[in-house]
Amino acid sequence: METVHQMEIEPGMSVGALLGAMSHCGFGARRLAEAVAIYETMLSGDFTKFLTLSGAMVPAGMRNIVSDLIRKEHVDVLVITGANLVHDIIESFGCHCLGKPESDDAALRSQGISRIYDVFLRDEDFIGFEELMQRILPDRAETISGREMMRLLGAQIEDKRSILRSACDLDVPVFCPALPDSMIGLQAWLHTQTKKLSVDAFADVKEIVDICYEAKRSGIVIVGGGVPKNFALQSMLVTPKSFDLAIQLTTDTPENGGLSGATLSEAVSWGKISADARHVTVYGDATITFPMMVAATMERLEKSRFKVCETDGDGSKY
Amino acid sequence: METVHQMEIEPGMSVGALLGAMSHCGFGARRLAEAVAIYETMLSGDFTKFLTLSGAMVPAGMRNIVSDLIRKEHVDVLVITGANLVHDIIESFGCHCLGKPESDDAALRSQGISRIYDVFLRDEDFIGFEELMQRILPDRAETISGREMMRLLGAQIEDKRSILRSACDLDVPVFCPALPDSMIGLQAWLHTQTKKLSVDAFADVKEIVDICYEAKRSGIVIVGGGVPKNFALQSMLVTPKSFDLAIQLTTDTPENGGLSGATLSEAVSWGKISADARHVTVYGDATITFPMMVAATMERLEKSRFKVCETDGDGSKY
Amino acid sequence: METVHQMEIEPGMSVGALLGAMSHCGFGARRLAEAVAIYETMLSGDFTKFLTLSGAMVPAGMRNIVSDLIRKEHVDVLVITGANLVHDIIESFGCHCLGKPESDDAALRSQGISRIYDVFLRDEDFIGFEELMQRILPDRAETISGREMMRLLGAQIEDKRSILRSACDLDVPVFCPALPDSMIGLQAWLHTQTKKLSVDAFADVKEIVDICYEAKRSGIVIVGGGVPKNFALQSMLVTPKSFDLAIQLTTDTPENGGLSGATLSEAVSWGKISADARHVTVYGDATITFPMMVAATMERLEKSRFKVCETDGDGSKY
Amino acid sequence: METVHQMEIEPGMSVGALLGAMSHCGFGARRLAEAVAIYETMLSGDFTKFLTLSGAMVPAGMRNIVSDLIRKEHVDVLVITGANLVHDIIESFGCHCLGKPESDDAALRSQGISRIYDVFLRDEDFIGFEELMQRILPDRAETISGREMMRLLGAQIEDKRSILRSACDLDVPVFCPALPDSMIGLQAWLHTQTKKLSVDAFADVKEIVDICYEAKRSGIVIVGGGVPKNFALQSMLVTPKSFDLAIQLTTDTPENGGLSGATLSEAVSWGKISADARHVTVYGDATITFPMMVAATMERLEKSRFKVCETDGDGSKY
Repeated sequence: METVHQMEIEPGMSVGALLGAMSHCGFGARRLAEAVAIYETMLSGDFTKFLTLSGAMVPAGMRNIVSDLIRKEHVDVLVITGANLVHDIIESFGCHCLGKPESDDAALRSQGISRIYDVFLRDEDFIGFEELMQRILPDRAETISGREMMRLLGAQIEDKRSILRSACDLDVPVFCPALPDSMIGLQAWLHTQTKKLSVDAFADVKEIVDICYEAKRSGIVIVGGGVPKNFALQSMLVTPKSFDLAIQLTTDTPENGGLSGATLSEAVSWGKISADARHVTVYGDATITFPMMVAATMERLEKSRFKVCETDGDGSKY
Repeated sequence: METVHQMEIEPGMSVGALLGAMSHCGFGARRLAEAVAIYETMLSGDFTKFLTLSGAMVPAGMRNIVSDLIRKEHVDVLVITGANLVHDIIESFGCHCLGKPESDDAALRSQGISRIYDVFLRDEDFIGFEELMQRILPDRAETISGREMMRLLGAQIEDKRSILRSACDLDVPVFCPALPDSMIGLQAWLHTQTKKLSVDAFADVKEIVDICYEAKRSGIVIVGGGVPKNFALQSMLVTPKSFDLAIQLTTDTPENGGLSGATLSEAVSWGKISADARHVTVYGDATITFPMMVAATMERLEKSRFKVCETDGDGSKY
Repeated sequence: METVHQMEIEPGMSVGALLGAMSHCGFGARRLAEAVAIYETMLSGDFTKFLTLSGAMVPAGMRNIVSDLIRKEHVDVLVITGANLVHDIIESFGCHCLGKPESDDAALRSQGISRIYDVFLRDEDFIGFEELMQRILPDRAETISGREMMRLLGAQIEDKRSILRSACDLDVPVFCPALPDSMIGLQAWLHTQTKKLSVDAFADVKEIVDICYEAKRSGIVIVGGGVPKNFALQSMLVTPKSFDLAIQLTTDTPENGGLSGATLSEAVSWGKISADARHVTVYGDATITFPMMVAATMERLEKSRFKVCETDGDGSKY
Repeated sequence: METVHQMEIEPGMSVGALLGAMSHCGFGARRLAEAVAIYETMLSGDFTKFLTLSGAMVPAGMRNIVSDLIRKEHVDVLVITGANLVHDIIESFGCHCLGKPESDDAALRSQGISRIYDVFLRDEDFIGFEELMQRILPDRAETISGREMMRLLGAQIEDKRSILRSACDLDVPVFCPALPDSMIGLQAWLHTQTKKLSVDAFADVKEIVDICYEAKRSGIVIVGGGVPKNFALQSMLVTPKSFDLAIQLTTDTPENGGLSGATLSEAVSWGKISADARHVTVYGDATITFPMMVAATMERLEKSRFKVCETDGDGSKY
């Protein structure tokens, strides 16, 4: 049996070094280290890479991590909640603010502030969002898919750090399966009162299933569970394939029977994930675990790229 | 200050009596007792009553509680996940089985069993579901809303204990905002390959917002958070009104910033819930707290109805 | 495979009937029903019955449930935190109050109120506690065990609903393994400044291990984990025996590796619980699950006693 | 209002840099960054520094982090569970192994392996522990405190990375308030059958209260709650002082009313923590958050030390 190595902390150590030390520890540390190992495999191999995103990740400051992953070609399919896209669009011209979770919510309302735990959003940014949406929502006769609507929106966002814009630039399909459930849905409906906008509720199903069919090997990073998790997994379910690598970052635990906390092993019984897939669930706040996993994996990819370059000249092996 | 009354247990005591005792206790017991008090107010007053349902409540055995609430006219609007509807339809002809959470999931797959924590579902029931869906999914030229599609499905389900059928019989609108995210979505897409079925992604928004506009006073019971919670709350947001009574049963806690665990107070800052609304969140497994709340509230309603009847003699009307 | 029976709610149904319905459901409902089945077996058979209690159960209103279990001879060994005993003693002359979890804690301090989530305690009750303790703490030359000190304290508490007094009356040993960690510890130390009080830190170990040795078969109910859980389990560990029945009510889940959320299966690997023991963990707030389990079990015991009585006449056995 | 800065990930970034980026984010990331800020203040100022440790931190690989903190004089008082000390002693001659949480626990038992979530411990290491304990447990006539017993044990452990040995070397008092609740307690009791060992259950109370009295300003890091948390906080309670800085790393949340998840604000109502103290609770697995906090804080201390050195030359002050 492999032994636990008591972790050593060095001042100034890199995130990758910390995660390296965690790989010989128990509990959450070990799970997070395993996530890094799987993610490195996923990003350095020939996998169709899914990223699903739930929870208020953009308001909490995770937007650039996602758009960078897209721009670095580490995401082939993005499945995301409408709320995260709303906040992505708001960040393209406005901002979120740092507040307090113990606030007087009635007072906040009268000040025109909406609270997301310890993040505040001002009404003026929502108004900006609504104006922008009415300007950039498509006006076309033909019925389109939700994914196509996302692409059309992304194309009109100026901020290159935007998730939607980055996905548009890199031709990464963005699926938002609970389309009516967000301010985008509300704005789209308002828009249809005066403009032509027709989105087929089921067209996305075909598009994502096609991607699943075509994937040779596939990996998935699930941040926060919810509808995006299920939509990605069920799309693989109807193909003869299943995910080969899977990482789940969640605060939910399995015992209440909900999907967001369901183990990835459970998904094996459905055929969504391969019986011999390498997979891990990291329990905890994704605003901590997601940046750590990405930082450590990027560090490793950089190092292995560097190693390859170094050895190119004389062909010596490592 | 009111004092804590140490709880007394009587063998054979009713659920309502237990909840009565809990109302003088601390922690979760008190929250659950408060939920009963709010629910009694909601069901005995003139409120538009929303019920939102997330989590695998039907596989876990909560289906008849929901359909009974509908048939007793305790639900005016139902917002629900596609998965719960899939399992509701399966229950109309098939069944779920009791399994073990520690199962070998690869072995289950090879036996044709899909696992939802400790509940098993056999492939044959999924096949039955698919066949039924292809038979009962609508075949019509005009574009319809998701709600209308739910009504059309409900009308063709024979089992009167079905949630969908009960809602159809009682004219209760059923909203499923993440329509493509479930086996209903998959089947609907397959169906469109050979039949005419066109569902507008945003039509539901108008329908639920109209209900919110028309509501004089409104109450909401949120089971499990997720998309149904947000869809109901955001629909009220765009009206000048807000919810007057709110109950949330959830396993999530607020600290991770996700919507499912967000306090109802947070919803006050958004204007979704009224600043002077009576509201409570009960933290815990809804397969325990939901039946308890319903049983205790039904008991109270029965008693107060009985009291009213008792006074019929002296000319008071009912 | 056994099928899930969709639960039916009847207004006025007893807690036992509700739990009966839960036994055919999934998730937490089923776990709680299993706890009732195990507890009925434990209380109606020849088992040495351990009860361990952590978490602020007395402030939350669970005191009489515990003292009734003791007086009904359903507890042979009680392992408990000092805090619960402090609050048990306070309840014998004073009270706890219902407060709000969102209070201004600095303001509470200046008003002389200490908060335990939504339960308030006034400084005057702490002062009453201190005075009482200085009066009833033993003054004797010989070194005693913690258990003996608990017995001496219990004998001097007048309130018969007190846990300590009930245990004293029924000769149930009370172990408080973290003795210095509570206001009893602080008062005991103050007491030793002027009186004779000598408690051997390890004497309790022998006393509880002796009980474990003598037990033929044994069952344990663990409320809330913590030190009481471990102290009871480790005492069995050093004997050739192990627990035959075990119930755990906890809000902790296993994934963080802590003892309070550790599965009872994990305890099997240590030899604390028998490999063929019947055991279950119910995840959730014990102020809800503990009263439910006790109420349903008492109802079943009553019914089976009644059945036995009914059949006494014709001599048929049960 | 300060705005959320969307986090930027750089390959190879240090843990301190990551935490710096987190300080402008929401949710858990921000809490963890605040913990680093408080810890830096605590370690660079004139504070009496308490560290309390619950949960199986040593089996999970956190031992050297703790002993390094002690050796670097970042700990003035250690309050710890007996279990962590048992595993510290085992690490001084043996080891823990990496296992699987889904193991067959009955099979493990028959192989002589005890499981702590995903960490395994072999019976041979327990036997080694028992032999060592019987050799190094004190044999003296006079009654001692638990703290003194810990010191005597620490003095005989050879491994300098041991927590107990480090504390002994640096004269850091170690309090283990639930002394009988661990294998140390069991071994101590066995020892008393043949040797002289008398530990006063309450002597530690005086010793820690004296430290609290003498502290000018004090800070506390609470890992995992439990008895160590309460013992440290209650000791401050009986003095006119209270903690000025406080950090809590825990997986428990406040809603169930237990102490381990209780907010530090709640402790303000008791007078344990100062009303104007700076404090934060980080929710999550401490095997992730504790190393991150320590690594980032050490990096900052190193940097500020370096800055001071750099400016020494020209006499500018810092």
